[in-house]
Amino acid sequence: MQDSSATACLIIVGNEILSGRTQDTNLAWLAKALNEAGIRMGEARVIPDREAVIVETVNTCRRQFTYVFTTGGIGPTHDDITTACIAKAFGVPVERNKEAEAILEKHYGREQLNDARLKMADIPKGATLIYNPVSAAPGFRLENVFVLAGVPRIMQAMFDGLKSQLKGGRKTLSKTLSSYITEGVIADSLSKIQSNNPLTEIGSYPFIRQGKLGVSLVVRAGDEALLDAACREVKTMLVALGQTVEEEP
Amino acid sequence: MQDSSATACLIIVGNEILSGRTQDTNLAWLAKALNEAGIRMGEARVIPDREAVIVETVNTCRRQFTYVFTTGGIGPTHDDITTACIAKAFGVPVERNKEAEAILEKHYGREQLNDARLKMADIPKGATLIYNPVSAAPGFRLENVFVLAGVPRIMQAMFDGLKSQLKGGRKTLSKTLSSYITEGVIADSLSKIQSNNPLTEIGSYPFIRQGKLGVSLVVRAGDEALLDAACREVKTMLVALGQTVEEEP
Repeated sequence: MQDSSATACLIIVGNEILSGRTQDTNLAWLAKALNEAGIRMGEARVIPDREAVIVETVNTCRRQFTYVFTTGGIGPTHDDITTACIAKAFGVPVERNKEAEAILEKHYGREQLNDARLKMADIPKGATLIYNPVSAAPGFRLENVFVLAGVPRIMQAMFDGLKSQLKGGRKTLSKTLSSYITEGVIADSLSKIQSNNPLTEIGSYPFIRQGKLGVSLVVRAGDEALLDAACREVKTMLVALGQTVEEEP
Repeated sequence: MQDSSATACLIIVGNEILSGRTQDTNLAWLAKALNEAGIRMGEARVIPDREAVIVETVNTCRRQFTYVFTTGGIGPTHDDITTACIAKAFGVPVERNKEAEAILEKHYGREQLNDARLKMADIPKGATLIYNPVSAAPGFRLENVFVLAGVPRIMQAMFDGLKSQLKGGRKTLSKTLSSYITEGVIADSLSKIQSNNPLTEIGSYPFIRQGKLGVSLVVRAGDEALLDAACREVKTMLVALGQTVEEEP
């Protein structure tokens, strides 16, 4: 299935993800939320908190995808360098944003608004703010790049606020059919079903559950009729092999 | 902290990760396992099951990192295209590997070894096998690229078998100090501690637990004395602010 609709790339900025200390969950959440908006996640990259890498990755990806999202690195501490790197990638200065400053002042009160917190009001010139209903400090959008917080709850709240700005195509529909059978037994039949249904994408994902091998067959299509037709063929094949089929949306 | 030791890149091949259907856990596991071997995970990319993207990503990354690992796409079904793509990236043909065929024949028995399963014995010319004690079908190594299964249990078993082939530097040591304090309060002091300890890397990661804001400060260093010195300064700062400090390795 070739998808001609809008695509997205997620850039996860963070040594803590690359070290294995923190398990990323933003990719899966954002992929599902974007699919609801008719936008397909085309790639994700996890990169370290290093200026040269962030700048280059942002500049590569913003030319390749309709939308780029970044998570992480926009807080007040010394290791939060994403904002400065995005500005550098676009060749614009970072400047104190009056609206962001007002938001932070309202949230913290003037006396608690120290220099470190004020750093979160420094935004690349020309960017528009992305609101943060959880902890106030905003993200921002510059052209097709959306700069979000790394903490999942904050990232999710930011995304919910910005999603009306995105223009997606048709949502991809999917259904999963699972059986305790091994891939090698069904591979040839499945390949034929894929050939019969060229506008549908069929993925085969083996799993091990409680010591038993099984496979989840994920059928994806842009339209209900195409999805149903391919699912019927997959189910018929599995039933003919004596399998019980678990269906999930 | 600039790390001059060996680096790695993980390429996660799989539409199921990019769609959000499956939560990747291989990155965190492999990052920790590589750190034990003195190798730093430098980047990870999640890419779709598309030939042009896989070939280009492999060729970019194998020149940039000491080691490249791929997960996913080496099974018997039509959507398993990683092996063919790796061969294409290296400009070598895929050929029936006699050793792999013998492994599969022993595992499945000759009569169950159908064409789809035999496809898993097709390996790029010049590659050496990576053994799979869980489900037999091997991965392979070509120069600095290690091609592994996507199912976590299988990937982990493959890695355990191959890790003696890796040459790492010194293992990075780390300690995490957590308190229920917000980043903005400690940012300036923390920045000074980072400046005092230039060979140590201090990361600050805010979290929300049971509705309370907190921060984990992760100190990383190549040597115990450097690690301890920086941790003492961090702890002293937090205690001076009246904080209880949770320490984790």
